[in-house]
Amino acid sequence: MSIELYRDEHHACLMFTDLVEEDGQAVQANQFLIVDHGVGAVIDPGGNLAFNELYLGMSRFFAPQQLSYLLASHADPDIIASLDRWLTSTRAKLVISRLWARFAPHFAKVGKTEDRVVGVPDAGGILPLGQGVLHLLPAHFMHAEGNFHFYDPASRILFTGDLGASMTSGAEAARPVRALRDHIPRMEGFHRRYMVCNKILRLWVHMARKLDIAMLVPQHGAPIVGARAVADFLDWIETLECGVDLFDQRAYQLPTAQIDPAVNAVRAPLRAVQGG
Amino acid sequence: MSIELYRDEHHACLMFTDLVEEDGQAVQANQFLIVDHGVGAVIDPGGNLAFNELYLGMSRFFAPQQLSYLLASHADPDIIASLDRWLTSTRAKLVISRLWARFAPHFAKVGKTEDRVVGVPDAGGILPLGQGVLHLLPAHFMHAEGNFHFYDPASRILFTGDLGASMTSGAEAARPVRALRDHIPRMEGFHRRYMVCNKILRLWVHMARKLDIAMLVPQHGAPIVGARAVADFLDWIETLECGVDLFDQRAYQLPTAQIDPAVNAVRAPLRAVQGG
Repeated sequence: MSIELYRDEHHACLMFTDLVEEDGQAVQANQFLIVDHGVGAVIDPGGNLAFNELYLGMSRFFAPQQLSYLLASHADPDIIASLDRWLTSTRAKLVISRLWARFAPHFAKVGKTEDRVVGVPDAGGILPLGQGVLHLLPAHFMHAEGNFHFYDPASRILFTGDLGASMTSGAEAARPVRALRDHIPRMEGFHRRYMVCNKILRLWVHMARKLDIAMLVPQHGAPIVGARAVADFLDWIETLECGVDLFDQRAYQLPTAQIDPAVNAVRAPLRAVQGG
Repeated sequence: MSIELYRDEHHACLMFTDLVEEDGQAVQANQFLIVDHGVGAVIDPGGNLAFNELYLGMSRFFAPQQLSYLLASHADPDIIASLDRWLTSTRAKLVISRLWARFAPHFAKVGKTEDRVVGVPDAGGILPLGQGVLHLLPAHFMHAEGNFHFYDPASRILFTGDLGASMTSGAEAARPVRALRDHIPRMEGFHRRYMVCNKILRLWVHMARKLDIAMLVPQHGAPIVGARAVADFLDWIETLECGVDLFDQRAYQLPTAQIDPAVNAVRAPLRAVQGG
């Protein structure tokens, strides 16, 4: 099922929240289609689990073989492990951080990425799309070392990849969050372990406050909607200690515990992403 | 071609350096096979580019369908994008950080990872292999948030994933480095941009100095061999400023430059991994 985040006569943003079968093995993930004046881009198209459903699901709105871009916030499997199949099925170019431009081809078969990768420099940039543009904003270390968010000035939506992610089901991810406080417990554990450090969050917030954001839409879980909730999110993340802030010598000790492959096996259902 | 890093009557460590066709698109990557008393594990099996060659190449030494483990230092595509094919071709379990246990299934088709993933807690642990063991050492934020190195006490080899990586060809990766100084220029740019911060490097070095390391073997480029070179590597990395240490507000600005997909296209040959 798709959710219309924005639509006017020439511009649309669609979100897909439930394409990955919820067997408890894989984390829920959102995928996005943006179309401007008949030119289309997919943001964070997802892994092999999502490919068929997204390809078919978006076909109702836009012919996937006409896609111009596959935008990847970074190179994790839930973001872009379907790359080989998208490169085969479309003529779209992968737009990704220069840091991952030579890693992403490992998703694909030999030669598939030839002239199909656009490497984004660390400063980001402005990408033409139809008669409009998308802004590629620096979001390095949130969590990936080379990482971008995507701001759509037509809809005033900021697509934030793992930032703002909440651990939930596809159905819950479809319900926008307008009051942040009750939502923080769904985000906190993930952000504390996967976001790299508070310094980076502060630098990013300082930049993000200059944008007019109607909706902050992560790649996992529910969109954060409205000026109040977005401002509260920026305030929350600005002071969050996370990642390396919380690690000391206790975390880097020669191991002594036995790993028993039977005991440590990950089985369904496992709902929360757990660190530690 | 395989390189014998270690062999005795019951234990062997093999390295594959040139399985990825060098068309300039994809970064060079090493893969490893460890066998103890007839029980086998692959370390960082690589992406779709490496699968066929590794499967065939290792067959001369060990029947791949008998593999017990696929050990992944983290979840990047050059590490484990071939997961779906390994899960199909073997009965091996994927051993990976708990942080990526629910992300890795996005590499595979639905249901493939059921009961096939062993999630390693942040403290790491000791994994039985044949009549011996492998130590799973915490290496978080080097670069991935959940990251492990693998220490083999029989060979005294430490497999360090991206740490110690050098950007080179498959042929050069096969030549061990015994004097560090001339090797540092091949490592420095990568480590400054991809390793998360000096604090983490220092914590890790403090732990690593307690190990008896004959050889430090990264997933890209050449092994660092001998007590002198290994000690010099630890000294170098301990004082390296990197990652978030080097980022300030200048790196987080709203973008103004145009991205031209033609100009920014990544074409072969591109030898150095470049940030910025």
